[in-house]
Amino acid sequence: MPVTDPVALTAELIRCRSVTPTEGGALMLLEGHLTEAGFTCHRVDRGGVSNLFARWGAKGHGRTFGFNGHTDVVPVGDTAGWTVDPFGGEIRDGLLWGRGATDMKSGVAAFVAAAIDFVTETPPDGALVLAITGDEEGDAVDGTVALLDWMATEGEYMALCVVGEPTSRETLGDVMKIGRRGSITAYFAAQGVQGHAAYPERAKNPLPAMARLVTRLSGARLDEGTAHFDPSTLAVTTVDTGNAAANVIPGVCHATVNIRFNETHSPDSLTDWLRAEMETVAGETGISFALETRVSGDSFLTPPGDLSALVARAVEAETGRRPEMSTSGGTSDARFVKDFCPVVEFGLVGKTMHQVDERIEVAQIETLKQIYARMLADYFANS
Amino acid sequence: MPVTDPVALTAELIRCRSVTPTEGGALMLLEGHLTEAGFTCHRVDRGGVSNLFARWGAKGHGRTFGFNGHTDVVPVGDTAGWTVDPFGGEIRDGLLWGRGATDMKSGVAAFVAAAIDFVTETPPDGALVLAITGDEEGDAVDGTVALLDWMATEGEYMALCVVGEPTSRETLGDVMKIGRRGSITAYFAAQGVQGHAAYPERAKNPLPAMARLVTRLSGARLDEGTAHFDPSTLAVTTVDTGNAAANVIPGVCHATVNIRFNETHSPDSLTDWLRAEMETVAGETGISFALETRVSGDSFLTPPGDLSALVARAVEAETGRRPEMSTSGGTSDARFVKDFCPVVEFGLVGKTMHQVDERIEVAQIETLKQIYARMLADYFANS
Repeated sequence: MPVTDPVALTAELIRCRSVTPTEGGALMLLEGHLTEAGFTCHRVDRGGVSNLFARWGAKGHGRTFGFNGHTDVVPVGDTAGWTVDPFGGEIRDGLLWGRGATDMKSGVAAFVAAAIDFVTETPPDGALVLAITGDEEGDAVDGTVALLDWMATEGEYMALCVVGEPTSRETLGDVMKIGRRGSITAYFAAQGVQGHAAYPERAKNPLPAMARLVTRLSGARLDEGTAHFDPSTLAVTTVDTGNAAANVIPGVCHATVNIRFNETHSPDSLTDWLRAEMETVAGETGISFALETRVSGDSFLTPPGDLSALVARAVEAETGRRPEMSTSGGTSDARFVKDFCPVVEFGLVGKTMHQVDERIEVAQIETLKQIYARMLADYFANS
Repeated sequence: MPVTDPVALTAELIRCRSVTPTEGGALMLLEGHLTEAGFTCHRVDRGGVSNLFARWGAKGHGRTFGFNGHTDVVPVGDTAGWTVDPFGGEIRDGLLWGRGATDMKSGVAAFVAAAIDFVTETPPDGALVLAITGDEEGDAVDGTVALLDWMATEGEYMALCVVGEPTSRETLGDVMKIGRRGSITAYFAAQGVQGHAAYPERAKNPLPAMARLVTRLSGARLDEGTAHFDPSTLAVTTVDTGNAAANVIPGVCHATVNIRFNETHSPDSLTDWLRAEMETVAGETGISFALETRVSGDSFLTPPGDLSALVARAVEAETGRRPEMSTSGGTSDARFVKDFCPVVEFGLVGKTMHQVDERIEVAQIETLKQIYARMLADYFANS
């Protein structure tokens, strides 16, 4: 029985130009391999985005192991900066090069290859579900969310889920993620009264008030961190006025603030705090403020337990390293999966993700497949 | 002998579409009237801008009375907002309407009419010089400056100069200007290190540093004012970053600060102060700053004396009001004239200047001509 090669599959996927939200043939390719291996596949397309649901085994089986990942990639940026064709899937010096080599066509290929081989060689008493999206790098509103919505409607189940994002920091196996901080973005507008710069007493300049708010917010310490989370952080990401006339005091000024928050906070508690800070400054300065917020993701934590232990055992058996249980970094689709079932993320070293000359050691992809395969064997062996 | 009508002349000028820096026929019109009245006219054109020099009497005469003004106007803005044709020069309800009705085609018409009638009716032992520019509302680099450069080269002279800008506040005659504050604009750039908003520890955000600088500068009290000047003022006119990505900490941020300063300061002393403030913040925050400055005009004062007394007498005789000697407001071409001879500004109530439906009482223009005529009579009577 032929063994599925995760490196060749990654290279095939890289050759699909699936720049978010374009499907680019990547999901069709996987659907072909999975169908052939006995998976039931269903395309969940929403809002112009394609997603792939694949299940082996009985629907709703109590022991269903889930994998989640994405085949869409970020744009290649300056093509001239690349040493190779970013969509070539070329192997050179033991490295596989191309957009998506680390984030995360390799991760998808590794769990697809592990799943196909596992159900082919040792069909388990249980089920496997692969939820693969084409919209993680974009707005992510019609991607994993659409898959999970569809699964809930259809009565599909996962007892747990491993997301194949590149989580390792320096060496494959050093870091897994058991949670992520949340992200909320606040948009402030300060409204004063426009006027001539020669007569500041007749105008009300919103800029000193906005500066005061920026100073208050960027100087605030949100918390001290928790057992599993770093302290929450706040970054003022832009302040803009757009007043080109140096003899005019502007009437309005805008600022944007992004907060990465841990379980100490919720989007609502942070919005309340931002509003209180803003109103304090409004009271001190006589400038009125408006606030709008957008929540990219709530914080979440899958507390250390069966799932993290399962992942750690597989990683340690294949690499000799016991992965650190981290919650650092940006957001990922795990923030959606966590509402469906316990979720942990584990994958390759992501150093070159989103960069030119994205690349990964071929050996890492092979080891990653072995790690995923070991998770499956371990999980179903104990059933 | 026909008396020159300053209202009709203003209306004629309004009908010339001399939106800065377009000549629009305005200077040609004046040149025609002045030449006819015996003035020697010379067009001083530089950098695409037209200016008109006119002299009655002997070149370099020790008793030369000067007038300065401009025929260019600011754009009309939203034409739909106007009750009348902004270039119609229409009289309605005792008001003359149109762009330039107050700033300052009326002022130019009033001194031109007064000058023509004066030299026609009572030719003095002395000379009159009219320096009229088409570039006051624009960059003002090829306007009055060009006229004064040319006059210096040609050995032309003025013993004193009255600028016909609209200086009155509420009622014609309540305010004259014996000086103006200077204006300097500072352009700051704060340079940090760009990064991902999820990892603020790997970036150096320039925005909190810029907010700190804005707070320091806008909270500073530059001086307490002087005998003739209000306190200097500082306005932060814009802060801009242009970072649309809420998950990115920006690398650079810009701010502009405009200072209107009195005789307590010089452009150099202010630049030194701004640099010191900037370096303090740089030292506190580790963010590096760059500073560029542009001086629009130094502050100046024509100390109360013969010229201001002459102007005040004429105003009081015609209006019954003794004008306050002010130095408030923006800049005007008096900032250039002051290097040539003593200069004072006196003119109409400027409430609607630069606005839609710019307009002025017809009676004010007539009174202004009488005031200018009285200045001339007074000046030459005492020669």
